[in-house]
Amino acid sequence: MYKIVFMRHGESTWNLENRFTGWTDVDLTDKGIAEARSAGQVLKAEGYTFDLAYTSVLKRAIRTLWLAMDEMDMMWLPVKNDWRLNERHYGALQGLDKAETAAKFGDEQVLVWRRSYDTPPPALEASDERASFNDPRYAGLAKEQIPLTECLKDTVARVMPAWDEEIAPAIRAGKKILISAHGNSLRALIKMLDGISDADIVGLNIPNGQPLVYELDADLKPIRHYYLGDQEAIAKAMAAVANQGKAKQA
Amino acid sequence: MYKIVFMRHGESTWNLENRFTGWTDVDLTDKGIAEARSAGQVLKAEGYTFDLAYTSVLKRAIRTLWLAMDEMDMMWLPVKNDWRLNERHYGALQGLDKAETAAKFGDEQVLVWRRSYDTPPPALEASDERASFNDPRYAGLAKEQIPLTECLKDTVARVMPAWDEEIAPAIRAGKKILISAHGNSLRALIKMLDGISDADIVGLNIPNGQPLVYELDADLKPIRHYYLGDQEAIAKAMAAVANQGKAKQA
Repeated sequence: MYKIVFMRHGESTWNLENRFTGWTDVDLTDKGIAEARSAGQVLKAEGYTFDLAYTSVLKRAIRTLWLAMDEMDMMWLPVKNDWRLNERHYGALQGLDKAETAAKFGDEQVLVWRRSYDTPPPALEASDERASFNDPRYAGLAKEQIPLTECLKDTVARVMPAWDEEIAPAIRAGKKILISAHGNSLRALIKMLDGISDADIVGLNIPNGQPLVYELDADLKPIRHYYLGDQEAIAKAMAAVANQGKAKQA
Repeated sequence: MYKIVFMRHGESTWNLENRFTGWTDVDLTDKGIAEARSAGQVLKAEGYTFDLAYTSVLKRAIRTLWLAMDEMDMMWLPVKNDWRLNERHYGALQGLDKAETAAKFGDEQVLVWRRSYDTPPPALEASDERASFNDPRYAGLAKEQIPLTECLKDTVARVMPAWDEEIAPAIRAGKKILISAHGNSLRALIKMLDGISDADIVGLNIPNGQPLVYELDADLKPIRHYYLGDQEAIAKAMAAVANQGKAKQA
């Protein structure tokens, strides 16, 4: 039997400001830092050890991982940064305040963009300064690999090769793996592992900074999964994520 | 022409306490943290960018690298942790106060252990709790690869394969590389690059937390080298390192 641990990054500045983030490289808030440290403390207290960590190329996931590694006293853990674990690209919504966007387009349209499986938000123009073509962290990619928007289906399509080519072989080789990533790249992995339908995956809310353990059988099929830590805090965090897209009540 | 940047980690708690550290995994002091951040700020101000970083499996070098990466806004930089970049193993002296050791064995013997090229300090017993056989970060190594003491010659012997097999091929492939390591693993690299004699290398003092640039020709032979940043502070830091092994004056 194998175990793999997933963590969604701690609260970011744009989670707090209720902005669409996507590939924008915002940092953690103080609360997010505390969540990341707490995740590391819980993993250490529960006796978890790791051989390898994966994260995205976005600092909110990297810092979450670093803080957890620091708390576990495992700063030496090999880390692989993979752009394919990035958050879903949010297209032209990146940087917009979620409540304002909801007020402008309506809760329903925003909910479609956030939670439809295959409807992407409006794409960035290729010339938009928010596009990632000139960002050195993506210098190794072909231009057509760099998205200007993504629906969750698109995110799933680029996360899966990272699982198939990198992560799954490492698990089979006996590596104990920690993954620090984002709401939608983790949804992609969980959809695949648990065989969740296109319709249902959009309703799955993953709380920030809570270690999520998947126990897998020899074929990497899930046996069970559970969050570590304070279960009441986890339930609250999941509800908070579910409410993020709604217009602020006056 | 190629460029590679070396950094010795910022001041550690045992640098401050004047203890022999070696493979002991001590952390940075507040001053060491400031030195590491400053190194990152200098690299950023001078326009340095990187494709890849190497460090040891010891947290004082890893944290120095992380802090510099954070200041450069390059947290996404791929990092390879290599035990072969660790500090020289200090054998049975690890944990001892340098001034006390000097008072006990004499300045001269301590200077031999610190600065002779091929005389190692007394070895740890294999059963000593300070030995690294059960440390998970070395789990992939054969028992005979894990030292119980090292002279600088031994350190050179295990650093060189990391250069030949990993770092030099990456430089030739055009990767811009940052290395965060330790006084003696950096001595090993500089000895090789500059062809410094066994007798002279022991007198080379590398200040903490100062980026050291080597410009290399197509055959990876040095053209020139220089420290970035405040030259007066660097001269002071080099003198401070040179004085570390001496018994404290009453």
